[in-house]
Amino acid sequence: MMPRTVLHNYFRSSTSYRVRIALNLKGIDYEYVAHHLRFGGHRKPEYLSLNPQGLVPALVWEDGTTIAQSLAILEFIDEMVPEPPLLPADPRGRARVRMLAQMIGCDIHPVNNLRVLNALRERFGADDETVADWFRHWVKETFEPMETILAEDGGTGLYCHGDTVTIADLCLVAQVANNGRFNVDMAPYPTINAIYERCMRIPAFVEAAPMNQPDAE
Amino acid sequence: MMPRTVLHNYFRSSTSYRVRIALNLKGIDYEYVAHHLRFGGHRKPEYLSLNPQGLVPALVWEDGTTIAQSLAILEFIDEMVPEPPLLPADPRGRARVRMLAQMIGCDIHPVNNLRVLNALRERFGADDETVADWFRHWVKETFEPMETILAEDGGTGLYCHGDTVTIADLCLVAQVANNGRFNVDMAPYPTINAIYERCMRIPAFVEAAPMNQPDAE
Repeated sequence: MMPRTVLHNYFRSSTSYRVRIALNLKGIDYEYVAHHLRFGGHRKPEYLSLNPQGLVPALVWEDGTTIAQSLAILEFIDEMVPEPPLLPADPRGRARVRMLAQMIGCDIHPVNNLRVLNALRERFGADDETVADWFRHWVKETFEPMETILAEDGGTGLYCHGDTVTIADLCLVAQVANNGRFNVDMAPYPTINAIYERCMRIPAFVEAAPMNQPDAE
Repeated sequence: MMPRTVLHNYFRSSTSYRVRIALNLKGIDYEYVAHHLRFGGHRKPEYLSLNPQGLVPALVWEDGTTIAQSLAILEFIDEMVPEPPLLPADPRGRARVRMLAQMIGCDIHPVNNLRVLNALRERFGADDETVADWFRHWVKETFEPMETILAEDGGTGLYCHGDTVTIADLCLVAQVANNGRFNVDMAPYPTINAIYERCMRIPAFVEAAPMNQPDAE
């Protein structure tokens, strides 16, 4: 029997969500291994020997290649299984899509992930409302310019870049879903919202959503 | 006269530093436009119309293509000017290099950049020592597993991945340089240190260093 690709992930992790969407869009069958971030499941020695960072997601490809960091995983999947492509064919388009993905992947998510929010509580005694305000602040700092870029000249198509789904849409959808947990007001972002809603009509996105995972609470 | 490529940047910005190294390695002549982050130079309307995020770096290619986000810029430069390559030829190698670059680009830098450190001061009254401790904490969280990965099986070569420089080395060098400002103890990271020192024997790295820029203070 061919070994299956394994995704180490957690239902609520938005970086894991990005990768689940990509695997679904490519039609890649994979084994779902859940790590309960809140209970330290990712800090077990056997997982650390696989991924020394101890974070999720980590992908173990069917040949044993192991990769962490969701944006690196998305590019790897796109190179190994080229159809349907998740990046445009031209370098300028690829640069725009990577820029949009990284606006979320570098400027929103890392500042708002669980370990940083926990550090705010532990180091500064931040309460729930203070933490939520921090989360919303960094979303706003990036969603405002992102809305401007996506709406420019009436937008480029149905999704972030033209009429096909790219890695930028995967990041956008996972971020918008995450925003719901902190009551982010989405009214100022009609273009982002419209792209989110179009994506959520695609089964690959719906099936990858946190609430549809085996470890969902 | 052919329009020149323009890099909007700031001498002290470690993400700008990554891009300056890449431009030097590729032998791309560019115009240096400095934005003084501390005095809000990047928030001027003319810059926001170019880069709605108002961050540095942003690259304006000679054909007018404008890209923000340093990791997207690095990939774009590597696609437009393929020699010398900054990514390995094989997908597994590319994934490893992107993973290493993103460990710094997603898990260290965004949590430790100027605007986040300023937010800690403004929102939580953090003083210099508290801010420095925050900075060092997130470096340690990622440099420990990075050292493990880089030292595995005696390492893969002179640099992060084999014997040629990749985007992972660009991120590593810029981060190590930044660490100096917050007295990070580098003793636990001999492999990272050795790679840093090897890179700093290459003129493209030295010429891109913060202190060698026209806006250095």
